[in-house]
Amino acid sequence: MISDLSNRASEWLCGIGPMHDVVVSSRVRLARNLAGMPFLSKCDARQKSEILEKLRIAIMACDLGEKLTYVDVARATPLDRELLTERHLISRQHAASDSPRGVIISDNETVSLMINEEDHLRMQVLRSGLQLNEAFDEIFRIDAALEKVLNYAFSSRYGYLTACPTNVGTGLRVSVMLHLPALKLTGELDRALRAARDMKLAVRGLYGEGTDSLGDFFQISNQITLGRSEKDIVEEFLSVIVPELLNYERKARQALMAHDATDIEDKIFRALAILQSARKITSKETMYRLSMIRLGVHLGKITSFDLKAVNELSLLAQPAHLQKILGREIQDEERQKVRADFLRQRLKACSS
Amino acid sequence: MISDLSNRASEWLCGIGPMHDVVVSSRVRLARNLAGMPFLSKCDARQKSEILEKLRIAIMACDLGEKLTYVDVARATPLDRELLTERHLISRQHAASDSPRGVIISDNETVSLMINEEDHLRMQVLRSGLQLNEAFDEIFRIDAALEKVLNYAFSSRYGYLTACPTNVGTGLRVSVMLHLPALKLTGELDRALRAARDMKLAVRGLYGEGTDSLGDFFQISNQITLGRSEKDIVEEFLSVIVPELLNYERKARQALMAHDATDIEDKIFRALAILQSARKITSKETMYRLSMIRLGVHLGKITSFDLKAVNELSLLAQPAHLQKILGREIQDEERQKVRADFLRQRLKACSS
Repeated sequence: MISDLSNRASEWLCGIGPMHDVVVSSRVRLARNLAGMPFLSKCDARQKSEILEKLRIAIMACDLGEKLTYVDVARATPLDRELLTERHLISRQHAASDSPRGVIISDNETVSLMINEEDHLRMQVLRSGLQLNEAFDEIFRIDAALEKVLNYAFSSRYGYLTACPTNVGTGLRVSVMLHLPALKLTGELDRALRAARDMKLAVRGLYGEGTDSLGDFFQISNQITLGRSEKDIVEEFLSVIVPELLNYERKARQALMAHDATDIEDKIFRALAILQSARKITSKETMYRLSMIRLGVHLGKITSFDLKAVNELSLLAQPAHLQKILGREIQDEERQKVRADFLRQRLKACSS
Repeated sequence: MISDLSNRASEWLCGIGPMHDVVVSSRVRLARNLAGMPFLSKCDARQKSEILEKLRIAIMACDLGEKLTYVDVARATPLDRELLTERHLISRQHAASDSPRGVIISDNETVSLMINEEDHLRMQVLRSGLQLNEAFDEIFRIDAALEKVLNYAFSSRYGYLTACPTNVGTGLRVSVMLHLPALKLTGELDRALRAARDMKLAVRGLYGEGTDSLGDFFQISNQITLGRSEKDIVEEFLSVIVPELLNYERKARQALMAHDATDIEDKIFRALAILQSARKITSKETMYRLSMIRLGVHLGKITSFDLKAVNELSLLAQPAHLQKILGREIQDEERQKVRADFLRQRLKACSS
């Protein structure tokens, strides 16, 4: 099943959700733990396996309205685990852990249910553009269905109990992946991100906790889950946080075009030319160049391909995907060459 | 006359002289002063004008076997002076001075005779590739012809007397412009240039004294002119200095291709792609990219254009030439855009 992943197009890859000029994707996740079982840090291997089996069997037996696939993450190869991470289906922590663990994935990859990550169960819905309400409705539906067959650790005073106190309460984390290249270029990024942090939001990189920003992508998420309703958290994102950052970025793009259009066009067309010509290129540089190309598509400077193509390249140029496409494992030095060849071939037809 | 310059092709621009894979051009110059007149630093304005008139009239009346043109450098516009400098027809010092001064140039630009630079007369012959003997024969012929009508300051003990002691004796400076990109890339450049300095050679940039290396071009010249014959100085360049540096660079190119051909190809094709796509570019970056393209032509990686085209672009992309082509003066910021447009248009047809 994993071998098919590298060629699939997830829903969020299409990139046509609302506000897709800035909002790449929306994500909601719920943290849940089974009642009567210790948190994972207190579990021995036998207990972890027990939790895994219990959740896997219960969930796979549920009708969640989508075709589900189970992946035994502990038994997956390192390359497959990396592949799942690059597709945002599991976290880096889940990939790297040494516990018995797994993930259940829906066919279009909008739903992923990690078992034995930090909590017994982490449910995630990921959608393209700004679709927090849609994502929330979906995860609420899944949560409700699972709650019928599972007994969660719940306190009437605190709400859902979780391994880390920051998740106690709703267990909800809401996040949006924003593409903020213009704020970076105008030097206003730090101010915008500081404003986000002042709103008690966490700012992270492309692959969540502990990862750097890559290609001007920033994940903005709530940090407080206790004492607020799920709807309030989502509503604040939709009516305050996202519009504010979106507005910042859009204004920065207008300012760039008004004050020095040539400068930004230069960055865009150089980026395209480099991806069309390089003979070796790192994953980091690729993301940076694709970030400029994405901006070029949004500004109408590049018309020879669309956002879906940019998203696909961003994903397929990642190390694990490249190796899957090639059909064998390769080390970094050779990977840079294979990546350049792959990008050149894919971008051959695109004129500047 | 100057307005034509920017469209002419000097002999050295053709770039087809011997050893042109490394030796861009060969240059010899003689320093001479008129007897009975003080060195320029001791002259007043009247005396300088007198020297200028005397030399101009005498030289223009001589049959040197070439059509000669006189340019009044003091009255030339700053842009025209810069144009002459970019074409290596006058030195930066000559362009910047505030004395009455001029230059006499042959039609194919191999010969340039600066009046009132550091010495009363500086004669230069510039040729493409390694043509030191040819250049020396030509300057010797010119010197002999002029000596019939001019009375030079000469000491039977020291030889020709010059304003700076380092030129006393033969008054000869021999130099070659070398293109050493592979030594730079392999990190051996410093060692090679140190070896040159150990041989009492001066290492300078593209525009001679006091200029930085630009695009991996280095001018290597003798520093000692006293107590050695002209033929000895030239012979040492031809049999020891140039072959040694040439050999270093060629071996470095072979090593690059043997150890990491992709790496060097990457630099070459990125350089071409950038010049074909940039919307703004500095003169410095242009020279660096053209240096890689020149290497690409020599390594057979780029076949869509030749060395002459690279040389022409290197020259025409310089600030004064660009402004001459455009027909008006423009500031740096706009120049970067005009340069990029010019390069894009010129390189449109060249595929990678």
